[in-house]
Amino acid sequence: MSPFDLPEGDPFGPHNLPYGVFSLPSPDADSHAESETGSETETSHNSASGQRTVGVRLGDHVLDSAAAARALGSPHADLLGRPTLNPLLAAGRTTWSEVRRALTEWITDPSIRDTLLPFLHPLSSVTLHLPFEVADYVDFYASEHHARNAGAIFRPDAADTLLPNWKHLPIGYHGRAGTVVVSGTDVVRPSGQRKAPTDPAPVFGPSQRLDIEAEVGFVVGTPSRQGHPVLLTGFREHVFGLCLLNDWSARDIQAWEYVPLGPFLGKSFATSVSAWITPLEALEDARLSPPERTHPLLPYLDDSTTEPAGYDLRISVAINGHVVSEPPFSTMYWTAAQQLAHLTVNGASLRTGDLYGSGTVSGPSDNQRGSLLELSWNGRDPLELPDGKRTYLEDGDVVTLSAWAPGPGGLRVGLGEVSGRVLTG
Amino acid sequence: MSPFDLPEGDPFGPHNLPYGVFSLPSPDADSHAESETGSETETSHNSASGQRTVGVRLGDHVLDSAAAARALGSPHADLLGRPTLNPLLAAGRTTWSEVRRALTEWITDPSIRDTLLPFLHPLSSVTLHLPFEVADYVDFYASEHHARNAGAIFRPDAADTLLPNWKHLPIGYHGRAGTVVVSGTDVVRPSGQRKAPTDPAPVFGPSQRLDIEAEVGFVVGTPSRQGHPVLLTGFREHVFGLCLLNDWSARDIQAWEYVPLGPFLGKSFATSVSAWITPLEALEDARLSPPERTHPLLPYLDDSTTEPAGYDLRISVAINGHVVSEPPFSTMYWTAAQQLAHLTVNGASLRTGDLYGSGTVSGPSDNQRGSLLELSWNGRDPLELPDGKRTYLEDGDVVTLSAWAPGPGGLRVGLGEVSGRVLTG
Repeated sequence: MSPFDLPEGDPFGPHNLPYGVFSLPSPDADSHAESETGSETETSHNSASGQRTVGVRLGDHVLDSAAAARALGSPHADLLGRPTLNPLLAAGRTTWSEVRRALTEWITDPSIRDTLLPFLHPLSSVTLHLPFEVADYVDFYASEHHARNAGAIFRPDAADTLLPNWKHLPIGYHGRAGTVVVSGTDVVRPSGQRKAPTDPAPVFGPSQRLDIEAEVGFVVGTPSRQGHPVLLTGFREHVFGLCLLNDWSARDIQAWEYVPLGPFLGKSFATSVSAWITPLEALEDARLSPPERTHPLLPYLDDSTTEPAGYDLRISVAINGHVVSEPPFSTMYWTAAQQLAHLTVNGASLRTGDLYGSGTVSGPSDNQRGSLLELSWNGRDPLELPDGKRTYLEDGDVVTLSAWAPGPGGLRVGLGEVSGRVLTG
Repeated sequence: MSPFDLPEGDPFGPHNLPYGVFSLPSPDADSHAESETGSETETSHNSASGQRTVGVRLGDHVLDSAAAARALGSPHADLLGRPTLNPLLAAGRTTWSEVRRALTEWITDPSIRDTLLPFLHPLSSVTLHLPFEVADYVDFYASEHHARNAGAIFRPDAADTLLPNWKHLPIGYHGRAGTVVVSGTDVVRPSGQRKAPTDPAPVFGPSQRLDIEAEVGFVVGTPSRQGHPVLLTGFREHVFGLCLLNDWSARDIQAWEYVPLGPFLGKSFATSVSAWITPLEALEDARLSPPERTHPLLPYLDDSTTEPAGYDLRISVAINGHVVSEPPFSTMYWTAAQQLAHLTVNGASLRTGDLYGSGTVSGPSDNQRGSLLELSWNGRDPLELPDGKRTYLEDGDVVTLSAWAPGPGGLRVGLGEVSGRVLTG
């Protein structure tokens, strides 16, 4: 069957076309039989085995975009034949649109698309890599439901479950860019200090409250200059696309360390992102207005008259294949455009490859919570899974986030999943 | 006078040899007269004008180290002829020692050193650049005097000026790597939200409490693998050297935003580092034991039996040329080795170019405080400067941190200064 014969309604059809970085098996891993059968000659226009290059997903296949561009004489071959997405990200919105238009034409035009056949590889035959080199990584805290749940759990006696600043600015902090890993990477349970209120002194050992945070990550393409804030209206000029992100969190380490300078080792051991970056241009039909604002906003955050900057993304959280939650991104109080405006309002510059997380996505319902902290109410209400009860993660657990968004003509736009297995620490 | 005839006791003599990145004036800036006099021929072995390359400081001159290495047939020419220090940093401790030994020989051997004359440029004739590409930036909070001062100012009614976790772990957080700038870069006063307790709602505008934090920055050379903590004894294998660091801080922005996830926009607009990185090997005579530990430490932080990991660095803070404080680094409770062990104990990996700040350096005396927060006691006790009173920084103020350390034979090892002017925001 041709890779172009997709099942009806495939969420990775020509309306989607997310970008990633892949490599073919390196020569060491090849069987000798393969080259003897002449497949080396057949694939001579493909990227060399073992080398990373930009791929575009179509159904269950990956298009070697640089090889296709070369074969078709496209001027973008050089930009696509790189080991990371960063050169494409840096090229800016006009180029992003040109490349997407070209890819769409190649894939949908019957007189062209058969030319691509040698450059389409089954997903199962390639290795997917971290798609971009992360510059700075920032994480926000933008779901009102998540913030209220956390407040109710950690400050049960407070008059308001929200802190006083929460409705006035999108709270955020910097995380560790060097430990962002691609979906499929194992995560070793981190060790660190923890101290329960009843402990006389802190103890050291593997985290006993290892958690997830289901988030969406936004990837910056176009940089900005130090001292020049990006306005709300600059969001789609600077941000290339989005991915799914799991902000692994060791709640016990975090609880002991975080006053007064915020999370550090409780978060810095690993952050997983999906292998596929969905360009914003694929998500035009998913745009919607964020929830009504309950507090007046300062002008740099006031989006009452700007175009809708929310996104209707339906996230699913599974543990060992069992869905435990379906957080709706549409309920996020702060939009990614507001987060970008806030991030830069003090003059901080953006670099190509900056990544910022939305913060845990939690909806209003019990089965829409994006963390085990909330789902198990910090261990009080264990989840019932087919393989037993869960409060926090156990060694061997595989956590998978997936998502889709409404696309053109009733189609779904699939977001690449982010998955990771917990290894014994 | 020969660049080798240094004043007696010059803190940048052959016992020091810090590394930086410099460029010569680009051709556009050259006068035509220069090439007409034939100087182009004379400097034909130097790095090309306008190109960045690794320089080594000797007195008030910069040695074009790659040009010298090429002229002397050294195998390290390639490592030194780069636009950042990162390749040298990545080469590891054995290479760091080899390169330093070679430089020392070239500069001190009378039969060799005259060969270097064409490659020595007056400091005043070159442009100094950010010496390395910053991977992740982490900032600590390691001075007990600073932490107690901050506690006394912000929590005057607390039973203990220190928070419960402070003596058990080196508190730290991630900062913005993309806004680390080199000494001499102007800093625009940041704007942001602030809210005094008496304000009914937050207001927006330029920070009214712009501060400095006098710190020492540690530069990671050798990377580490995710999941593999670096032990206390690994400090000198992984850390190449240190610099001076000014962690500019907008106290009013920070005060409103920092609960519960720590400082964000109050710090992320700019962090200044000195142009010169002093290798740890130049600071062997400055090593000393840190202050006595008042609380037992968990094994991964217990340095009671390791070699002394403190450093005797005498810092000086000047505003518009007037010294306002002389913080002693020897009083820091947590050492850089402990900070590195803590940073990685959860399995977080190190990358070449990681930078971590010591935290504000404050000694026990009033005139040893490393921030205006402490020096003016949050505005209560203005400083008297020759040009008027100061609580926090005024537009146009130039802040300069400088430092020295005890070196061999009674010599001083100079640290490159870090300086920056505040521009109107």
